[in-house]
Amino acid sequence: MTHYTDKISIETSKTSKIDTVDFDNLDFGRLFTDHMFVCDYEDGKWQTPKVMPYQAMTFEPSARVFHYGQAVFEGMKAYKDDEGKVFLFRPKANFDRINKSSERLAMPAFPENYFFEGLEALLKLDSDWIQPGVGNSLYLRPFIIATEPAISASPANNYRFMIICSPAKSYYNAPVRVLIAEEYSRSADGGVGFAKAAGNYAAQFYPTSLAQEKGFQQIIWTDASTHSFLEEAGTMNVFFRVGDKLITAPTSDRILDGVTRKSMLQLAEDLGITCEVRRVTVEEIKTAAKEGELKEIFGTGTAAVISVISAFEHKGELFEIPEIEDSYAKLFKKTLLEIQHNISEDKHNWRYEIK
Amino acid sequence: MTHYTDKISIETSKTSKIDTVDFDNLDFGRLFTDHMFVCDYEDGKWQTPKVMPYQAMTFEPSARVFHYGQAVFEGMKAYKDDEGKVFLFRPKANFDRINKSSERLAMPAFPENYFFEGLEALLKLDSDWIQPGVGNSLYLRPFIIATEPAISASPANNYRFMIICSPAKSYYNAPVRVLIAEEYSRSADGGVGFAKAAGNYAAQFYPTSLAQEKGFQQIIWTDASTHSFLEEAGTMNVFFRVGDKLITAPTSDRILDGVTRKSMLQLAEDLGITCEVRRVTVEEIKTAAKEGELKEIFGTGTAAVISVISAFEHKGELFEIPEIEDSYAKLFKKTLLEIQHNISEDKHNWRYEIK
Ligand SMILES: Cc1ncc(COP(=O)(O)O)c(C=O)c1O
Ligand SMILES: Cc1ncc(COP(=O)(O)O)c(C=O)c1O
Repeated sequence: MTHYTDKISIETSKTSKIDTVDFDNLDFGRLFTDHMFVCDYEDGKWQTPKVMPYQAMTFEPSARVFHYGQAVFEGMKAYKDDEGKVFLFRPKANFDRINKSSERLAMPAFPENYFFEGLEALLKLDSDWIQPGVGNSLYLRPFIIATEPAISASPANNYRFMIICSPAKSYYNAPVRVLIAEEYSRSADGGVGFAKAAGNYAAQFYPTSLAQEKGFQQIIWTDASTHSFLEEAGTMNVFFRVGDKLITAPTSDRILDGVTRKSMLQLAEDLGITCEVRRVTVEEIKTAAKEGELKEIFGTGTAAVISVISAFEHKGELFEIPEIEDSYAKLFKKTLLEIQHNISEDKHNWRYEIK
Repeated sequence: MTHYTDKISIETSKTSKIDTVDFDNLDFGRLFTDHMFVCDYEDGKWQTPKVMPYQAMTFEPSARVFHYGQAVFEGMKAYKDDEGKVFLFRPKANFDRINKSSERLAMPAFPENYFFEGLEALLKLDSDWIQPGVGNSLYLRPFIIATEPAISASPANNYRFMIICSPAKSYYNAPVRVLIAEEYSRSADGGVGFAKAAGNYAAQFYPTSLAQEKGFQQIIWTDASTHSFLEEAGTMNVFFRVGDKLITAPTSDRILDGVTRKSMLQLAEDLGITCEVRRVTVEEIKTAAKEGELKEIFGTGTAAVISVISAFEHKGELFEIPEIEDSYAKLFKKTLLEIQHNISEDKHNWRYEIK
């Protein structure tokens, strides 16, 4: 059945796959809900957006995304409270960021009303896919790809914006062991590291696979010029706790401005925990570890919320970070999840209810 | 009609579009021949390759290429001599390079026999699309994309290798004016600049569009750390002629190892022209320009062969490079095209005949 709202055309799925889903055993990002949101950019403007049954789509082999990587994405989550109310978390930050990413890749800005109407339409149709319970969520993946069938190396004229949704339990549960980058890099000054540009991720896979062969799940990237400053991990910003103080790198043109990071900085202030935003050297963290002052390292990101780092290696030296009782990681994770799931007060207006 | 050779399954197109093509007015990369080559990687190996009618294909919205930019490509050309013989130019170099690019993006190596059998099958079926005449060619675009429908940020298990073909006249004819990068960068040490990774190209579009607004068609990239060394242009390596000597930057993990560049180095040796392969500073080129010693700058790449650079700007200083009579650019272009088109002797065995 196709009907038109003011702006979006909606075609609902005749059947639902939801009864076939084992919500206790979700493999992240492989299973998608019944609907998706699609909006094409043609003739210099975004056309009428559509919600339609989740399905495969046809592309020309010459679509520019396949050749020149003109593609950006976002990652966000919807949460359900015990009364069945559905919330997003700071969605405006994701909206702003996708347009910042697009601008850097010479792609057109997406309209704010389409972004929000798309999310709302999808979340209403697929609300049964959002399981209540802290830690459960529906992962939302807005993305934009260059569809124009022409392989000249220049920005495309046609694009497709889509949102697909995948039910998720919290991602990365076990503490991770990380390698500090000494040779490979994630991004350059003046490059696209701050953008959620598709190509930034593929570029990390090989160095990460080398790290995995050595028993480390992730890499903490350092600056490409000197490899002496700690920057961020594959899909997480990173915080270091030295004594009772937190330190995290400032965002830059190399580092993604994470929504979780930003929220963490505010929560630290709320909780009276000092957090220094400044360049962090590998050496100072190694020294702190040797002196017993390095209490915690953790990554922050939408997918994992907070991911505890239990060990790091740099230039062949391995540092284990023993688990502690009064961990900031645990405190921040609980505080954030309770705001996200409408359990605690939302004094910064971070929740966005889907009504 | 589908028939099987030893290894490739071939389905020929029932009709040909060739009669609708105006070969004198080709818009680069928008028009493709009647056939394409497709080979899927599944269950840990490359499956039976297929040649089939050129057509759009179906992809899941969650195909990893759309999200993480796991995509590499090559650019090569087929030429026809006056007797109708068809040649490739150093195709083994492109084959080796696509696998080098794939390795850096954690993608599986493609088998050499499939690569060559695919090219041969396509070029036999679509040989009418290769126009004789120096400067005409059929541009071949091998590429590999991650097709696995799963949005976890890790290397895919499924890929598609394809070759599509587009008739071309020589690309970039007019001399170009370039801006020397002072702020933006193309690649980092330890990054993927040496690979023909899709994401490297989208990352250049925005800075290039800013350069275009100032009247420069291209950017010559400099090293990301200091912006003091000249590296390469968007899809070309760069040569500087100071006096009678050529200088070009060494390849590195930031710079693509161009087939044209490599051939140029050999031709320079053959022609008795000194070519220094070493780091080139912006300052020395500006000084040479001021002293009247900078005779030429040109880019080299498969698409344009040789592209003359007639002016460059750096930190607000504009340098015009007057056209000269005995230009190396012209000499090299002619020498190379004559080898490619089977007009002159091929002493290095660069031509590869399709029989
Ligand atoms: C490179 C990178 N850093 C950090 C993050 C964390 O950002 P956020 O907290 O907005 O999810 C992400 C994405 O999730 C990322 O891709
Ligand atoms: C970044 C870059 N540099 C240089 C070149 C020139 O390489 P080739 O001579 O092999 O075409 C290309 C591709 O064509 C390229 O993409």
